Amino acid sequence: MKKFINHVDDFLTESLAGFAAAHGDLVVLNHEPVFVRRKTLKPGKVALVSGGGSGHEPLHSGFVGYGMLDAACPGQVFTSPTPDQMMAAAKAVDTGAGTLFVVKNYSGDLMNFEMASEMSELPNAMVLINDDVAVENSSYTTGRRGVAGAVIVEKLVGSLAETGADLEQCKAFGDRINKHTASMGVAFSSCTVPAAGTLTFKIGDDEIEVGVGIHGEPGRRRTRFAAADAIAAELLTAIVADLKPGNGSELLVLINGLGGTPLGELYLLFNSTRSWLHQRGLAIARVQVGSLTTSLEMAGASITLCVLDDEMKRHWDSPVHTPSLRWGM
Amino acid sequence: MKKFINHVDDFLTESLAGFAAAHGDLVVLNHEPVFVRRKTLKPGKVALVSGGGSGHEPLHSGFVGYGMLDAACPGQVFTSPTPDQMMAAAKAVDTGAGTLFVVKNYSGDLMNFEMASEMSELPNAMVLINDDVAVENSSYTTGRRGVAGAVIVEKLVGSLAETGADLEQCKAFGDRINKHTASMGVAFSSCTVPAAGTLTFKIGDDEIEVGVGIHGEPGRRRTRFAAADAIAAELLTAIVADLKPGNGSELLVLINGLGGTPLGELYLLFNSTRSWLHQRGLAIARVQVGSLTTSLEMAGASITLCVLDDEMKRHWDSPVHTPSLRWGM
Repeated sequence: MKKFINHVDDFLTESLAGFAAAHGDLVVLNHEPVFVRRKTLKPGKVALVSGGGSGHEPLHSGFVGYGMLDAACPGQVFTSPTPDQMMAAAKAVDTGAGTLFVVKNYSGDLMNFEMASEMSELPNAMVLINDDVAVENSSYTTGRRGVAGAVIVEKLVGSLAETGADLEQCKAFGDRINKHTASMGVAFSSCTVPAAGTLTFKIGDDEIEVGVGIHGEPGRRRTRFAAADAIAAELLTAIVADLKPGNGSELLVLINGLGGTPLGELYLLFNSTRSWLHQRGLAIARVQVGSLTTSLEMAGASITLCVLDDEMKRHWDSPVHTPSLRWGM
Repeated sequence: MKKFINHVDDFLTESLAGFAAAHGDLVVLNHEPVFVRRKTLKPGKVALVSGGGSGHEPLHSGFVGYGMLDAACPGQVFTSPTPDQMMAAAKAVDTGAGTLFVVKNYSGDLMNFEMASEMSELPNAMVLINDDVAVENSSYTTGRRGVAGAVIVEKLVGSLAETGADLEQCKAFGDRINKHTASMGVAFSSCTVPAAGTLTFKIGDDEIEVGVGIHGEPGRRRTRFAAADAIAAELLTAIVADLKPGNGSELLVLINGLGGTPLGELYLLFNSTRSWLHQRGLAIARVQVGSLTTSLEMAGASITLCVLDDEMKRHWDSPVHTPSLRWGM
């Protein structure tokens, strides 16, 4: 295992310390319990609180800031954060309008966020993200997994919350976005959790895992390596079969690297994706290409499509200022 | 070789097509010869034209846009672009104030940019970047290599050019920034050039290459894997010995991933870096963490320090709107 690391037990602490120091203009790192919160809070705004296992950076801490999250709770690598982190984060960023917990569907995350939701004294609601169309039920999930669609939910609902929408409106918007968002990924390589020190799974030199989860969970099938066009077609076929975008739909396309795949390949995958969509008369209205929901150093990528309406488009375009997503300000 | 690729010969073409489609609001892709240019040019502004082998994305194409480059000429992977690309790009973005070629010091790049400079009918000048302190003369270089410091030169000179500075002022500023910028990198893994199909170099499971170049060139030494603090200390010792920042110096720190290293590790490396600098009384004024000058999927990172003055600070902070660096607008 070759990583930038000093001691395995200190990996998360030191990484978060570096993150908080690099972005001290935007975020504050809380210790005991650990969470990252916005430096400047907006009175009367619904607070968006997310979190999950670490190893998916920039998700979620990199999206704390104006127009997205108010706080993020990082668990250990690939391990859910605890309810006390979530409750403390919610309390720290509360400015009177309640908390919206934004949760990717993984059993541990869901259980802990539900516990935090029940125990919190603040009004709260939850948006559960389950955009991964690869499999129903998985190693760590009942139902579908929540993956890179989280970035879209956090951006859009984060923008709505800035306008003064109430908790009910934010939750309804989040649920609507989730319903119109679908993803599927492919892994070329495995990854190593620091505390484990060995590869999460094995994969042959000529194999790929189609439908992989963001912790290396098995997908739909292990198959032979294929051309980018063929991989894109397989992922998009599954996504479009799920989303069923109507004629004239406008799509947000997110090409998401899993950590070890360089940007040049992600753009090539976008090129395959746009050809495939174009041939089916599906219009691309917005594009985001980058490694935003990762699995440590895993090579591979996921494709996410989100069927946009005008309100969603407006909230995608609105200003955002976080460590890893920034425009308009 | 597992990459998002269809045919080896089409890798660059398809990747650039995806890039240009994803960022059609900002850039235009020219074919025959290939270059990427700003969609909207500013009359009377010095045009910044850079380029180099592909495989280092987002460098340079990802930095075409307001506040940075006017055009970028991508060569094949790890191969210099040709003088005709450079001359055509310069001509395409000329708005009457001349061309500043921004060149990383590699023999092929330098030779071709010098040829373009001589053959171009437009007034032009060149800034040669040689920030890599690892080695004098290398596989592909006479003198020191130009690496991630290019991002800083392009951002700062790009900002100055927007203010209406003339060619001479832009060149002088670029030379001054280069003089105050130093970098060194470390590789944990090799990388595979698509056309070669095999690893550029071999490295053992417990080895690292200290001082590696961005094409996998040998560095100062091949040694056993070490803790992040020790790696940071070795890189920073070499960098600071070269830069000799005075008392009270304010530094821009760029922690640059080489392509296959996840963001969480880069923040940890920044944490090691800031501790080391703090212990020596060196102040960090600005920070940038990300994979901005890569070597395909190589795991590893480089550290760049730039000694800032007030003018440089102002130009770092100024608005920028490119595919891969954006703030203030």
